[in-house]
Amino acid sequence: MAEIKGEDLLCCASPERLAQQEGERVTVEGCVHNIRELGGIAFVILRTGRYLIQTVHDQSVCQKSLSELEDGCYASVTGKVRLEKRAEGGVEILMEDFKVLSRPAAPYPLNMADRSLKATLGTNLEYRTVALRHPRERAVFRIMEGIENGFREFMLANDFAEIHSPKITAISAEGGAEVFRLKYFGADAVLAQSPQFYKQMSVAFFGRVFEVGEVYRAELHNTSRHLNEYVGLDFEMGYIRDMYDVMNMETAMLRHVMAYLEAHYQPEIRLLGVRLPKVETIPSVRFADALAYLKTVGGGKNRNDLTADDEVLLCDHIRRKSGSEFVFVTHFPTAKRPFYVMDNPENPKEAFSFDLLFRGLEITTGGQRIHDYEMQVAKMRTRGMDPVDFESFLTAHRHGLPPHGGLGIGLERLTAKLCDLANIRQASLFPRDINHLVP
Amino acid sequence: MAEIKGEDLLCCASPERLAQQEGERVTVEGCVHNIRELGGIAFVILRTGRYLIQTVHDQSVCQKSLSELEDGCYASVTGKVRLEKRAEGGVEILMEDFKVLSRPAAPYPLNMADRSLKATLGTNLEYRTVALRHPRERAVFRIMEGIENGFREFMLANDFAEIHSPKITAISAEGGAEVFRLKYFGADAVLAQSPQFYKQMSVAFFGRVFEVGEVYRAELHNTSRHLNEYVGLDFEMGYIRDMYDVMNMETAMLRHVMAYLEAHYQPEIRLLGVRLPKVETIPSVRFADALAYLKTVGGGKNRNDLTADDEVLLCDHIRRKSGSEFVFVTHFPTAKRPFYVMDNPENPKEAFSFDLLFRGLEITTGGQRIHDYEMQVAKMRTRGMDPVDFESFLTAHRHGLPPHGGLGIGLERLTAKLCDLANIRQASLFPRDINHLVP
Repeated sequence: MAEIKGEDLLCCASPERLAQQEGERVTVEGCVHNIRELGGIAFVILRTGRYLIQTVHDQSVCQKSLSELEDGCYASVTGKVRLEKRAEGGVEILMEDFKVLSRPAAPYPLNMADRSLKATLGTNLEYRTVALRHPRERAVFRIMEGIENGFREFMLANDFAEIHSPKITAISAEGGAEVFRLKYFGADAVLAQSPQFYKQMSVAFFGRVFEVGEVYRAELHNTSRHLNEYVGLDFEMGYIRDMYDVMNMETAMLRHVMAYLEAHYQPEIRLLGVRLPKVETIPSVRFADALAYLKTVGGGKNRNDLTADDEVLLCDHIRRKSGSEFVFVTHFPTAKRPFYVMDNPENPKEAFSFDLLFRGLEITTGGQRIHDYEMQVAKMRTRGMDPVDFESFLTAHRHGLPPHGGLGIGLERLTAKLCDLANIRQASLFPRDINHLVP
Repeated sequence: MAEIKGEDLLCCASPERLAQQEGERVTVEGCVHNIRELGGIAFVILRTGRYLIQTVHDQSVCQKSLSELEDGCYASVTGKVRLEKRAEGGVEILMEDFKVLSRPAAPYPLNMADRSLKATLGTNLEYRTVALRHPRERAVFRIMEGIENGFREFMLANDFAEIHSPKITAISAEGGAEVFRLKYFGADAVLAQSPQFYKQMSVAFFGRVFEVGEVYRAELHNTSRHLNEYVGLDFEMGYIRDMYDVMNMETAMLRHVMAYLEAHYQPEIRLLGVRLPKVETIPSVRFADALAYLKTVGGGKNRNDLTADDEVLLCDHIRRKSGSEFVFVTHFPTAKRPFYVMDNPENPKEAFSFDLLFRGLEITTGGQRIHDYEMQVAKMRTRGMDPVDFESFLTAHRHGLPPHGGLGIGLERLTAKLCDLANIRQASLFPRDINHLVP
C-alpha cells in the first residue's frame, strides 16, 4: 500500500498531534475565531478544519502588530508549541510570525464566540454558510461522516458491493404521487424515491449490495423530522432465510458504527455531548403486540401504522423494560406496505416487514422482498397494478433472484437523534424543505 | 473496535478462503452459472457475489438428482472442500447435498458461459439486469467500487470532510443552458451540474471537503464518453498556495487509488486484464505549449480547448516522451473556463485551471478558485452576470474564504479507461443517455 498522506500540512493538525511537537516551530492555518486581549498579550483562537487552536500574540516575541488580525480572516501562524493546560486541547502556539491569507468583506452576522450558536432555526438557515462555521454546528456533520463511513466499512467487510443507481427514473419505487417530476429529453421522468428497484435488481448479480445516495420525497410535510431531499443508507442482501437475517445484519452494523464513532470522532462526541447507545441484542416486538400495548397508554390510534407519538411511547416502554434504546417492530399490516414486500404466507394480512425505532423515532424501514416472478406479478394484480408498467424491474425476477431482503436508513435522522438535535434540518448541510431551495 | 463481521456467511467466500478449509464440510450459496456433464459426474459452476466456484456432482456421493439443478437457479451447496488445480481458484466442492433456493421463470436471453459477453451494446443495455450477471460485466463495478473507496480512504486520511450537497438547486454552477429543470413546490429548480458552489462554501468551515455524488448534464451528446447522469468524485481544499497544491494532492490520491486496487481487487484485475498505471510525478504542460505541439501533428484546431482527438495525440506524445500515461494540461484560456476560476494576474487571458488526461481522455477538470469577494463580483460583472443571482454563493466570499482550489473526476470515465471499455455506458450500472431512461 502506498503512503496514504499526501503531504504533511498542518491546516488539519489536532491539539494532540501538536503536543507531540512541544518546543518545535510549526505553522498552523485557520480562520481567526476569536481574539481576546489580556494585559499586553492576546489570545488568538484559530479555527482549523476541525479544531480550535490557541495561539498567543506577545509583541515582545512577534514583530507584527496584532491589529493586522481580525475576526474571520484566514491566516497562517508560525511559532513554538508549548503545553498549556488552560488552553483547549492542552496546547498553544507562541506566535513568532503570521500571515493573513484572506480577509472577509463583511463581519459575521452571527456570533461565533458563544458556546452554542444563538440563532433561531430561520436565521441559522438564512445565513447557513456562516452558521456552519460555528464549531458545534459543523461538528454534527463529522458525526454524520462517521456514521456513513462506519456503515460503509462494515458493508465492504461483509462483502456487500457498493453501487450507484440512477436518480432520474421512469418509474416510482413506492408508486405514490409524492414524486418530483421532470422532463428527460422529452420523456416523463421522476426523481427516485428510493433505490429500491435497483438494489433488488443488483442482488441478482452481486448477492449483496449497498448504496449511499440521495433520496427524493415531494411530501408536503413541514415537520421537524422530514426533509424533501435526504441521504439514504441502503442495503439489500441475498440468500436470507427470513427478515431476521436482515435485522441481525443491521444490529451488527449499528454496533460497528457506534464503535467507529467512538474510535474516530471523540472531539465531536465531547463537543456535542453525544451519548453513544449500547447496541446489544435489539428487542423485537410484533406490530399487533405493540398496538395492544399502546392502547393501554392512550396511543395506537392508527390500526395500520405507528404514529409519531406511538414511536415515543413505545421506545420509552422498551427502554424501561429492557434498557435498549432501539426496538424493532415487525409484521406490519400488509395494507400499508409496498407491493414488493413479502407477506407472511400463514397470515397474508401481515407482511415480513419491520421498522427500527431509536430514541422515539423511526430510522429504518426494511423487510423481506418477493423474489419469485409469479408471486410478484400476482401481488401487483391484486393491488390493481399493471405488471407491464414494471417490465424492467420484473425482468430481474423473471430471470431469477435469490431470496433477499434489505432496508433503508435515513442518515440525517440517525445523525439528528445521536446529536440530540431539535430539528432534522440541523443535520443537513443545505436542507431542502418546502420553504428552502437556497442555498 | 467491535468485531466487523456480522456473521460467517459463505455466500461470499473467495476460493482462497475456501482452500483454507480443505477437507472440511462447507455450504456455499450462489447462482448456477453453468453445468457440464462429463462421464457420470457433473461440474456445476456456482456464481457467488464475486467469484465462480466449482462444485462437483457425483451421484455416488450426492443423493439428489442433478436434474433438479438448472442454469440460473439460486442454490446452496453443501460438501467437502478439496484442492483441484484445474478448477478456477484451485479449489472445488464435492457436493453432498444441495438446496434450490429459487428458480427463474425464464432462461437468460444471453449466454453467460462465454468468456466475454457476446452482445451488442444495445442488447446489453436492453437486458441490463441479465447482462450484469456475466462475470466480466459485473467486475467493472468492483473496479469502480475500488476507485471510489481508494479515493475516499485517501481523502479521509488527509483530513478532508465528506459532505453531501443538495442536487435540487435554484442555480446552476456552470451557468449554462444544459440543465435538467423541474418544479420544486412551485419554484423553478434545476438538478446540480456539479457540487461546485457547495464545495466552495464548505471550505469556509471545513477547510478541506470531498463529495461522491451524482452529477447531471442535460447535454445532447450521444458519444462513447458522455453520460447524462454520472458520479463525480470531487474535492476542494483550502489554504493552497496555488493550483499545483491541488495537482499534487490529486497525484498522491491517484497513487493511493492504484495501490488500493492492487491490494483489494486482484480477482477483477486478473479477470478484466486491468493494467494499473504507475503514478509517479505526473508531467504537466501549459495549454499554449500543448496547442503548439498539436499543430505540428495536425491537431490543435480549437484555440481555446482540446478536442477529443487532441487528447489522444497529446497523451501518446507524453507517454512516448516520459513514460507517463497521465498528463496535466494547465493554464487554459480564461474565456472557456467558468466565472469562479482564478485568472493569472500576470496574464488574465489564462486561468489557473487544469485538466488531467489519462490514456487519451480527460478525466479531471480543476483549478484555483476566486476566494476574494470583490474579485469574484468584479469577474461576474465583466461576464455580464448579475451578482444578485448568486447571492447565497457570494455570502461565503463576503464573510471570508481561505485561498482554495479543487477538482472533479468522472468516476465512470476513469473506470472505463482502467478497464479499457469501448463505451462509457459499460461503466454505468444503469446508464442514462438521451435514449435510456430505463431500466
